[in-house]
Amino acid sequence: MDINKLFEKSELIPAIVQDDKSGAVLMLAYMNRESLAKTLALGETVFWSRSRSEFWHKGATSGHTQRVMSIYSDCDDDTLLIRVEQVGAACHTGEYSCFFNEVMKRV
Amino acid sequence: MDINKLFEKSELIPAIVQDDKSGAVLMLAYMNRESLAKTLALGETVFWSRSRSEFWHKGATSGHTQRVMSIYSDCDDDTLLIRVEQVGAACHTGEYSCFFNEVMKRV
Repeated sequence: MDINKLFEKSELIPAIVQDDKSGAVLMLAYMNRESLAKTLALGETVFWSRSRSEFWHKGATSGHTQRVMSIYSDCDDDTLLIRVEQVGAACHTGEYSCFFNEVMKRV
Repeated sequence: MDINKLFEKSELIPAIVQDDKSGAVLMLAYMNRESLAKTLALGETVFWSRSRSEFWHKGATSGHTQRVMSIYSDCDDDTLLIRVEQVGAACHTGEYSCFFNEVMKRV
């Protein structure tokens, strides 16, 4: 597919990161065209940090890198799904997944 | 948790929808405070359509509703993960998941 198409509507698109083995959703971060290119070249996730306005090679300091196994875009090409092998914890809190705050659970 | 906290940074936040049984990531859409409230009240996903600027009760016309099993927010409370029982296909193309465009696959 044409990667440029992904950034036609917005320079920055959400990237869902999923554990390739367990299927657990680990985190959501954002990518621009260059961070996707860096991810493809490196084989590890590189996001664009909106708060710091800089590239963010996930795990560069913590060692908790994400080895990219596959990447998919959605039907309207404005969201990415990145399946990874997660080294250590995905979340900066030490939790494996960032999604640990329960908002609702059906009983 | 305090639901208002979710919309402090932005009125609209991304909501990842995941199949509760298989773990498949089905789609990503957006929620504002009211659409989350409607989702909680109805027990089915209600998003905010950015293109149509209106509430979008998923499956209201197609019948492909999403029964909400649980909802989690992430560590910085600006993304939702919604685990659902999907009726029919999640994608408007008829695909089960919206993420069917392969961008990269490690060989």
